[in-house]
Amino acid sequence: MQQQLSVITLGIADLPRSHRFYCEGFCWAPVFQNDEIVFYQMNGFVLGTWLTTALETDMQKQGLARPGAFALAHNVARAEDVQPIMDRLVQFGGRVLRPGDAPPHGGFRGYIADPDDHAWEIAWNPRGRSARKAT
Amino acid sequence: MQQQLSVITLGIADLPRSHRFYCEGFCWAPVFQNDEIVFYQMNGFVLGTWLTTALETDMQKQGLARPGAFALAHNVARAEDVQPIMDRLVQFGGRVLRPGDAPPHGGFRGYIADPDDHAWEIAWNPRGRSARKAT
Repeated sequence: MQQQLSVITLGIADLPRSHRFYCEGFCWAPVFQNDEIVFYQMNGFVLGTWLTTALETDMQKQGLARPGAFALAHNVARAEDVQPIMDRLVQFGGRVLRPGDAPPHGGFRGYIADPDDHAWEIAWNPRGRSARKAT
Repeated sequence: MQQQLSVITLGIADLPRSHRFYCEGFCWAPVFQNDEIVFYQMNGFVLGTWLTTALETDMQKQGLARPGAFALAHNVARAEDVQPIMDRLVQFGGRVLRPGDAPPHGGFRGYIADPDDHAWEIAWNPRGRSARKAT
């Protein structure tokens, strides 16, 4: 099977609040939006932010929990880019989970929760993506 | 800021169990693995499956919950490809959340939970990715 993923859909409670975080915090532009979902065209796939009630109905699975056991990572080009992005995301509804610091495996990263408690790692990784946790 | 995501990390409880689902169910090949994490090179980013305890330590956020309020989608080329993939994933530790059927917005899809209760939508979408929920 093709080793690909087409869409990541995050459940949200309040569309304008989430929209502010992604559009004004990350400065990302939606590719589509209506009153229950916003899509962002990412690098080869789509990020969707959809009202959790609608996602639950579509999935036929009630009681989706937060914070979910996952993290999304946004990599940046330089170590010194991490903190300003984290600071900006906090201005637009994000919450610091872990301030920026250097992990044992190298690089520099911090974690921010979006307004719906979904975790984003903001990371500079000098060793490339796939070896991030390699020891 | 670049509209990109570098890594999706899913928290897992049992590495061999998760490995079986992704490597034998989806037939994906790891690009790196050790005794606590497996990375899969996807379309322009990396999917990581990492022991939840380690993810929680890295994130400095305890008590990550399942099922999280999100879904990942794997799109397929034809409607008739959805059910065989779902059946195969069930053979390797997946659990059907919603059997394959046609949503109101067109196409054909079902939902499968991986062994750690992370939701995967297996979808055929004739209208393209970004218009998936468009009305």
